[in-house]
Amino acid sequence: MINASIITIGDELLIGQVVDTNSAFIAQEINKAGFFVKRRVAVGDDKTAIIAALNEEKIHSDIILITGGLGPTADDITKPLLCEYFGGKLVINEAALANVKHLFENIFKRPFTERNIKQGEVPDVCTVIQNKLGTAPGMVFTQIIEGKEKIFFSMPGVPFEMKGMITDDVIPMLQKKFAVAHIAHRTLLTAGIGESMLADMIQSFEEKLPLNIKLAYLPSYGFVRLRLTAVSDNAAENDETLNKLFASLQLLVTDYFVTNEDEPMEKVVGKLLLQKGKKMCTAESCTGGYIAHLITAMVGSSQYYDGSIVSYSYRAKEDLLQVEKNILETKGAVSEEVVLQMAKGALKNIGSDYTIALSGIMGPGGAMQDKPVGTVWVCVGKKSKLQTHKFHFRFDRERNIRLTALNALNMLRKFILEDVE
Amino acid sequence: MINASIITIGDELLIGQVVDTNSAFIAQEINKAGFFVKRRVAVGDDKTAIIAALNEEKIHSDIILITGGLGPTADDITKPLLCEYFGGKLVINEAALANVKHLFENIFKRPFTERNIKQGEVPDVCTVIQNKLGTAPGMVFTQIIEGKEKIFFSMPGVPFEMKGMITDDVIPMLQKKFAVAHIAHRTLLTAGIGESMLADMIQSFEEKLPLNIKLAYLPSYGFVRLRLTAVSDNAAENDETLNKLFASLQLLVTDYFVTNEDEPMEKVVGKLLLQKGKKMCTAESCTGGYIAHLITAMVGSSQYYDGSIVSYSYRAKEDLLQVEKNILETKGAVSEEVVLQMAKGALKNIGSDYTIALSGIMGPGGAMQDKPVGTVWVCVGKKSKLQTHKFHFRFDRERNIRLTALNALNMLRKFILEDVE
Repeated sequence: MINASIITIGDELLIGQVVDTNSAFIAQEINKAGFFVKRRVAVGDDKTAIIAALNEEKIHSDIILITGGLGPTADDITKPLLCEYFGGKLVINEAALANVKHLFENIFKRPFTERNIKQGEVPDVCTVIQNKLGTAPGMVFTQIIEGKEKIFFSMPGVPFEMKGMITDDVIPMLQKKFAVAHIAHRTLLTAGIGESMLADMIQSFEEKLPLNIKLAYLPSYGFVRLRLTAVSDNAAENDETLNKLFASLQLLVTDYFVTNEDEPMEKVVGKLLLQKGKKMCTAESCTGGYIAHLITAMVGSSQYYDGSIVSYSYRAKEDLLQVEKNILETKGAVSEEVVLQMAKGALKNIGSDYTIALSGIMGPGGAMQDKPVGTVWVCVGKKSKLQTHKFHFRFDRERNIRLTALNALNMLRKFILEDVE
Repeated sequence: MINASIITIGDELLIGQVVDTNSAFIAQEINKAGFFVKRRVAVGDDKTAIIAALNEEKIHSDIILITGGLGPTADDITKPLLCEYFGGKLVINEAALANVKHLFENIFKRPFTERNIKQGEVPDVCTVIQNKLGTAPGMVFTQIIEGKEKIFFSMPGVPFEMKGMITDDVIPMLQKKFAVAHIAHRTLLTAGIGESMLADMIQSFEEKLPLNIKLAYLPSYGFVRLRLTAVSDNAAENDETLNKLFASLQLLVTDYFVTNEDEPMEKVVGKLLLQKGKKMCTAESCTGGYIAHLITAMVGSSQYYDGSIVSYSYRAKEDLLQVEKNILETKGAVSEEVVLQMAKGALKNIGSDYTIALSGIMGPGGAMQDKPVGTVWVCVGKKSKLQTHKFHFRFDRERNIRLTALNALNMLRKFILEDVE
């Protein structure tokens, strides 16, 4: 099995100003391609720290994937450093320079300055990967360590530029260079059961797993994903074994099963709607458009999603959803009566087949007597039948919003599955 | 300066199934407390890999912060491993066990099984941090390396459990143990200028910076943040120097200045509205509720945000925003005329002072003749005055949605600033 290390460079990663989404993407793609990501390391824009990371990771792994520090400003030191590390000198790469000029003149429509010429320079000891989406070229270096060739890829830290290079250049180069083992993953999602109970339920299955198959429990927002991973040199055999075991696992958790794809809840609901040829809408108060966002972030969601009324204020609830003022005043915005009226208003005004309506207190403020932070009323259903449920989440605002959205989508999923007419 | 390393444990980090938000949070808090995060390392649920990481990071740093691998299932190996690494044996911790029992019986309302007793065990060579928000206790170990005491914290990987421990236990313990240098950051946000142009504009400022002050360029979605970082043993002097330099920097970029706080665009707009005592609403098509979500994710947004009409379908545009069918058919949903009508509809139906209305093609499908993917019409304004602008973004769906949202919020920000009546 060929090991890979990911090194991300940038002070912003060490002071926590940005979340490192690059590593996750690279890990995913490298893994799918049949390599084993052994370590991910983040270091600052600091020469000593970067060199230490290069020295360590080339011992741990055969493939070293580096992102960040390739910008045109003084805090970006990766390019000259790599040039020195691999014993080269910086030279203009005509294709890279032409690309930078083209971007400034035709796309950014900003003046091309002296500083930008440096963006077309690369070490003369690397293979250049042209950047189709930005200014900084990618670079490939090799070095022999204890008789073994190690390969280093340096890519920009800008996510979509890096992504283009990983998919179009890095993976094809790696697959050409190495004959790789076959890694396969299958993931299923459960709802309504905790990690420990699930573990007890499938204990004997887990104990009997062959050594090349691993089972992982991935709890997230009240749902638990189970992932089986199989590694083998024989791809066909590997897939067959994994699929057989995965089928048994699904049978063991039938009562809590949501999906056997590695896909989010909003996609599960979307597929169900497409399958039934139905459309849905939402009426959101406490989630403030988050459910609409989750759904519409999916490609093709316009086929099953009509829209949302985000009624954040009392007035919006009255004007846009015809919630009665009297009910709002006597029962409060966070009540079963209000979410029922919101659902009816949404179905009437937007005209979809199904709806989710919800109202709650996401915190940190807003708690009322008998209604602590985290209280949420959810209503799902259709014109002829509505269901309500009261949830109580115990976390911070961000997590409460996410929990509310996922649990409301799960409620609608179950409603649609049971809705035979 | 005291160095810290963060080790995150979990196979899911190496196959890219989850984004590591824990590291960013820990880094932020540890940094604010006056320590220097030197490295972040992620390794899998693998004994050899975890031990290698512990061995390496205790050389790099004096503080080692570990998260993950503390769950009750077979793939969680961190606790017994740390027990062995530090030469202890597992014993029941009565307080931890009582906490696990309490959570199962009173909060999760799930049966307490044999497996869960193990969650109350800890190595007898550690100091226990009780987990107020979950089952796995935190653990603190020390070890002398080359005559120097190194301190190790092991925390659960569940984000909100880890966050509670960092804030309530880890930081206070560290501040008690070490006399720390003072680190201060100031960040400003610019709009409408690229990284290179900005660098040219402030080149002489940057060259004259004292050695203990660092300037970083953080480009993100068409905006560039500039961050000054100062390190010194004298806190008062450090803050004074930094504030003076930060004030000069602000003056140099006045024309492109958005905010001198490290805050997102939606918060800048929110503060502006609060200051003016005005409220806003949105009418979203292509962003599908994302702007509403950004705004309502902010605490206190109900003071300045009324709601959104997410009109994803043609029918929703007609029914909820009174966009004329004739205009939709002749001009298309992505047109100046439609966003003007959407804005008018939103202002009329929701009754806010200001609005943002937008319609575009986020991709990958949906391109039309003369309207490629990434075409977006945005309208901002108030009843008596509306402004429109056509954008063209060139990226993937996710990025196009985010770019659209941020640029639309920036348009409204400028509109409000210029709106003197």
